[in-house]
Amino acid sequence: MNQDYILADPWSIIEEGFDKDRVKSSESLFSIGNGAMGQRANFEEHYSGPTFQGSYIAGVYYPDKTRVGWWKNGYPEYFAKVLNAPNWIGIDVFVDGNPLDLNHCTSVKNFRRELNMREGWYGRSFVAITEQGIELSVKVIRFLSLDLDELGAISYEITPVNQDVQIAFHPYLDSGITNEDSNWDDKFWNTTSVHQEETQAFIGAHTMKTNFATCTFMQARAESNGVSIAAKPGKKNETYVALEFDHKVPKGEKMVLTKFGGYTVSRNHEASQLMDAAKEVLQGASNLGFDALLAQQKEAWSKIWEMSDINIEGDVKAQQGIRFNIFQLNQTYLGKDSRLNIGPKGFTGEKYGGSTYWDTEAYCLPFYMATKNQEVAWSLLEYRYNHLDKAIENAQKLGFTNGAALYPMVTMNGEECHNEWEITFEEIHRNGAISFAIFNYHRYTGDYSYIPKMGLEVLIGVARFWHQRVNFSEDKQKYVMLGVTGPNEYENNVNNNWYTNYLAKWCIDYALDQIETVKTNFASDYARIVTKTKITPEELGDWAKVAGNMFFPFSEKHEVFLQQDGFLDKEMVKVQDLDRSQRPINQKWSWDRILRSPYIKQADVLQGFYFFEDHFDSDTLEKHFDFYEPFTVHESSLSPCVHSIQAAKLGRMEQAYTFYLRTSRLDLDDYNKEVEEGLHITSMAGTWMSIVEGFAGMRILEDKLNFSPQLPDQWDSYSFKINFRNQILTVTVTKTGAIFEITGESELEIVVDGSVLNLVPGKPNSL
Amino acid sequence: MNQDYILADPWSIIEEGFDKDRVKSSESLFSIGNGAMGQRANFEEHYSGPTFQGSYIAGVYYPDKTRVGWWKNGYPEYFAKVLNAPNWIGIDVFVDGNPLDLNHCTSVKNFRRELNMREGWYGRSFVAITEQGIELSVKVIRFLSLDLDELGAISYEITPVNQDVQIAFHPYLDSGITNEDSNWDDKFWNTTSVHQEETQAFIGAHTMKTNFATCTFMQARAESNGVSIAAKPGKKNETYVALEFDHKVPKGEKMVLTKFGGYTVSRNHEASQLMDAAKEVLQGASNLGFDALLAQQKEAWSKIWEMSDINIEGDVKAQQGIRFNIFQLNQTYLGKDSRLNIGPKGFTGEKYGGSTYWDTEAYCLPFYMATKNQEVAWSLLEYRYNHLDKAIENAQKLGFTNGAALYPMVTMNGEECHNEWEITFEEIHRNGAISFAIFNYHRYTGDYSYIPKMGLEVLIGVARFWHQRVNFSEDKQKYVMLGVTGPNEYENNVNNNWYTNYLAKWCIDYALDQIETVKTNFASDYARIVTKTKITPEELGDWAKVAGNMFFPFSEKHEVFLQQDGFLDKEMVKVQDLDRSQRPINQKWSWDRILRSPYIKQADVLQGFYFFEDHFDSDTLEKHFDFYEPFTVHESSLSPCVHSIQAAKLGRMEQAYTFYLRTSRLDLDDYNKEVEEGLHITSMAGTWMSIVEGFAGMRILEDKLNFSPQLPDQWDSYSFKINFRNQILTVTVTKTGAIFEITGESELEIVVDGSVLNLVPGKPNSL
Repeated sequence: MNQDYILADPWSIIEEGFDKDRVKSSESLFSIGNGAMGQRANFEEHYSGPTFQGSYIAGVYYPDKTRVGWWKNGYPEYFAKVLNAPNWIGIDVFVDGNPLDLNHCTSVKNFRRELNMREGWYGRSFVAITEQGIELSVKVIRFLSLDLDELGAISYEITPVNQDVQIAFHPYLDSGITNEDSNWDDKFWNTTSVHQEETQAFIGAHTMKTNFATCTFMQARAESNGVSIAAKPGKKNETYVALEFDHKVPKGEKMVLTKFGGYTVSRNHEASQLMDAAKEVLQGASNLGFDALLAQQKEAWSKIWEMSDINIEGDVKAQQGIRFNIFQLNQTYLGKDSRLNIGPKGFTGEKYGGSTYWDTEAYCLPFYMATKNQEVAWSLLEYRYNHLDKAIENAQKLGFTNGAALYPMVTMNGEECHNEWEITFEEIHRNGAISFAIFNYHRYTGDYSYIPKMGLEVLIGVARFWHQRVNFSEDKQKYVMLGVTGPNEYENNVNNNWYTNYLAKWCIDYALDQIETVKTNFASDYARIVTKTKITPEELGDWAKVAGNMFFPFSEKHEVFLQQDGFLDKEMVKVQDLDRSQRPINQKWSWDRILRSPYIKQADVLQGFYFFEDHFDSDTLEKHFDFYEPFTVHESSLSPCVHSIQAAKLGRMEQAYTFYLRTSRLDLDDYNKEVEEGLHITSMAGTWMSIVEGFAGMRILEDKLNFSPQLPDQWDSYSFKINFRNQILTVTVTKTGAIFEITGESELEIVVDGSVLNLVPGKPNSL
Repeated sequence: MNQDYILADPWSIIEEGFDKDRVKSSESLFSIGNGAMGQRANFEEHYSGPTFQGSYIAGVYYPDKTRVGWWKNGYPEYFAKVLNAPNWIGIDVFVDGNPLDLNHCTSVKNFRRELNMREGWYGRSFVAITEQGIELSVKVIRFLSLDLDELGAISYEITPVNQDVQIAFHPYLDSGITNEDSNWDDKFWNTTSVHQEETQAFIGAHTMKTNFATCTFMQARAESNGVSIAAKPGKKNETYVALEFDHKVPKGEKMVLTKFGGYTVSRNHEASQLMDAAKEVLQGASNLGFDALLAQQKEAWSKIWEMSDINIEGDVKAQQGIRFNIFQLNQTYLGKDSRLNIGPKGFTGEKYGGSTYWDTEAYCLPFYMATKNQEVAWSLLEYRYNHLDKAIENAQKLGFTNGAALYPMVTMNGEECHNEWEITFEEIHRNGAISFAIFNYHRYTGDYSYIPKMGLEVLIGVARFWHQRVNFSEDKQKYVMLGVTGPNEYENNVNNNWYTNYLAKWCIDYALDQIETVKTNFASDYARIVTKTKITPEELGDWAKVAGNMFFPFSEKHEVFLQQDGFLDKEMVKVQDLDRSQRPINQKWSWDRILRSPYIKQADVLQGFYFFEDHFDSDTLEKHFDFYEPFTVHESSLSPCVHSIQAAKLGRMEQAYTFYLRTSRLDLDDYNKEVEEGLHITSMAGTWMSIVEGFAGMRILEDKLNFSPQLPDQWDSYSFKINFRNQILTVTVTKTGAIFEITGESELEIVVDGSVLNLVPGKPNSL
């Protein structure tokens, strides 16, 4: 099956032609979301062919009892599952009493989907001939409002083409839904009320165990030829309620159903007020009407694009790819609510469950820092601060004491969800990413206030963890860290993973520095933190001993740090010399074979060089890149971006561009043949980084914004905006040079290719 | 709850007093088996209290679909589950119409169970007062015939004590049974026929998926005061059939039900002939009658004891312990059928499923070689030969080629069942135990014929595996073996586990030697094997290169081989310095903490010193014992025996005896508080080894039997018999010395404490 069927277009994702084999893939690709909820692009009308139904509410999850073959002490009790929520988009359509179902039409012509990213809506149109020979032209537009983020709207328009027909719309709500991903086929939802009045309906349901109460609501109106059609109560049972609009539509005239729907949730309202809140939302929507809401939507998206767009000239597929990534990130997370985070599949599928991985800190934070107001990045940091107590509990379960904190590998509410010992207990470098994100936030925004207010407690908990996690090797006379899994998950339970050791040492050093800074500059915060954490000079001295005497595996022969102890014992056959039939190794090889191979799933030592590039000179980076990249199979969607950035840094633009291509259209062209399960949201931020940090070379060095712009040969130009310390900087890179333009009040000194450039608001400055 | 309630007795396991909390434990401890089937000591009459029902047929299993949290390539599709088979022991008893149920009696007096190990039967007696005030005296005897191994027999005797009562016996068959251990609550059995005629009944049922057909059968007769009571058809439904015997029994008189029952199975009969075969079994049993069958049983067990007993004077609990172990081993496996093997729980529980672990070769083979005719050991070896093709397939699944064989960690039919990557794919030392068993068989029996006939093909498959499993380390200029789990399962995915590397080298060397021997002495076998395996001189040369240049981690400082690379980086706190509250670590610690600790679950380096003791001098053994034992937590039932043998070898009898105690009454005293799940059958062979190889110091060196007898201070004497090359040697060790006596035709030269002793049949020879 041809996977890359999406038509090239700078601002829209477009599919033309109806192919049943593509339905599930397109349901992922045309997903819509507004940060508070999201849904796959399921058809509104009944579809009896293969489909993967999905509608999701941010932060509403179910703790699915852990399922493993062999239990290990310390495994979490449950895995937080992203929940398929009650369906509010459904509209059954009957034509002369027969259901409209594209799976049973004799012909579907002019089928077209469009995800209009610039304006934030999803449309579908087709001409179908039913089994009864009735030809119908259908046009649907759907969007989830950014401004009223509990509301979605659908306009469903149908026109009989070849005869007069009786059309019936049955818009409905349905809470009798299930998850495809369920360990024990538990019932996830309990429906408590089903209510209908006039043109509105409401279903009250709460999640089992977590007890999130929701009201799923709708309001529908239909008209034909400007005449409103009366609503009648429809079918109703314990998990379902419908309205009915019935009308004889003359050939060539259209009948339009406008449906508003969505959720009110006990996370944001009193549980007892959910229906009232829903009515308020509907009232607001009715007051405006569909067209005004859609106009608002376009306006809201235009504001987002204003700050986050990357414009590429000369390569429409690259343009479409990067915009798709930016669009999806914004559909998933907007930073309005510090209880939320960025799930790897966003609102586009169930897989991976949970919501938060270290992806957020390592890959997503830079995107949000640069394309939003800094409150959004603050929200992401605050999320982890709010989970600090849970991280301390989590560490306690693994035998750590004294306020040591281990952040979970996968979480929804701060509790660990993952249950493979080699990941859950050993992929602990994730803890360092939390500290690094605090450093990165301060480095980029220049805002120190987070550290005395919240961050320092996190830094202390993390430093305590590292201090306890190492042990002193009598043999090496150094502190070692045994039994870890690095970012390269194709190694498990290794000793002295360089990345983890280096990060651990850095975390301790950075915590010690910040303790000193807060002590000096924020005395009352310092006093509060000392009281709370009970840090003592002796303890800090112990930390310093560890940080000062950490072991780092190094090869004198190759002049590189070793990924871990014993790395050079492997059979060092490069990826290019490995038979193509053996790849991807994670599908072709048993796990032991992968583990003893030298192959690297994603940047590991090089992840360290990405975080701490300024700790090393370019020659050292080059040596490590040349040593490790040839063994890297990039079988994680998070791998190519780091390599793209480093290749660009080393002036290897061909290679950098090749890596860039591997991520930017990963989902659109379905490289991994799994897009039907959902999109790879978090790695999309890596694509953004490849351009901004890779091609444009953006860095913060000594508190200054640096660039070293390069242009892929394949492009005519690219430009992007970043919000740097509350001023918007536009960077445009063309074949002839780079142009920098700043908005706002203040001048800004930046460094371009090593030279200082003073930017004055309103005056483009080119290199 | 007091766990050590079993009364001391040299020949019987005895429980006195009825305690509902002990029922499940006693169901395990009083289990009976005859090698072909076995059952937990469930009550015949209905019992409504907590019970764990179990009746098992050797070799009849169900492939329960694998359940894991995260799938890895190469995982097996299923885990072979030991199946709870249809119940044939059930006898519902009604007293004046009310069911007899010990859980609801107002009093249970004189409750006594006895497992008579000398004679091979299980008895139970009690006096119960029912809720209706009726006092009854009950006596039950049950056994599974060794001679007719499809048959079991029950005599159920009941005497009203305080009044005349109407007694009804409803003996039944029931195939509506389930497994406690089931991954998906599958239905394991499909019942196809339920049939009753006169005093007999039959249920035809086959296992789902594996389709083992069985006929579960019974025949019952009742009499009272010498008068036979007529059988009436009882309840019958699609999975159940009963007979009824109803009789008014005067106070003081007894009513006896004799029930024969058992299974005929399609493994041993045509599936269409199972009922006929069952009728034949019943005919044979009827001809003899209960008493003659019981007499036969005593005779059969006396023959087993004749060859396998260990007699200990001066310590009745030690005596009871060792006999319990020997008894259970004989109940589990008698070597009559090379399709069978020794499951870790025998016929006493469901846990661990599968049937065969490396326990068989490493721990059980010596016991069966010494206490049975050598055909039994041959059967155990033949079992693995018959699985060679499956072992080659298994290796292929993991990417090995050219006939390399990897025997499974857990298996029923040669296919791998286990599904933890660190075990399934990495605990590959099991493969070496298969080769070692071939060597050990030849060493002990002197019979070389197995090697040209079957063994050499196994040795070649195993050698090929090791040759492919290592790789050449440019760094070390040696062959290394990466990513393995040794016998110490508290380390996973380590590099260069010394035991595995040493065993691999030995396997290759041994295979090369045997190829040479077979080539020289068994030309036609050699030709056949070369044709089949396609070994070439070049290939053998490659093997030799690996064996000749294998890497063995060694510490110059400690003068010991290291358990694995990096072992000395650990925090080397000895077990004795570990807080008691932290143990057992497998219950108290998370897996990562266990892995990075120095603690050893069971002999690892020392397992190598056990297998290859004669490769090293005593000083070297002592150094390694003193280095490793202090870090060993012995949290496997297979650990203490090896240490006991080595402590004895080093002349440390106190320590040897301490280790011995940890295994010999492991189940009887329920050290691990888990005996209700079943017994630890395979480790029982280790207890036998602790005496024979440990205290008595039995070895084969240079083709000669060696002893260096020692006596624990706590004992007056011990004696045992071994079958050495078809002669029975009796060894008696007393406080004053050791006596050796041989039966048979030939003289035998043995070595005792380094001195040659010539044994003449019939003449005891003392040291």
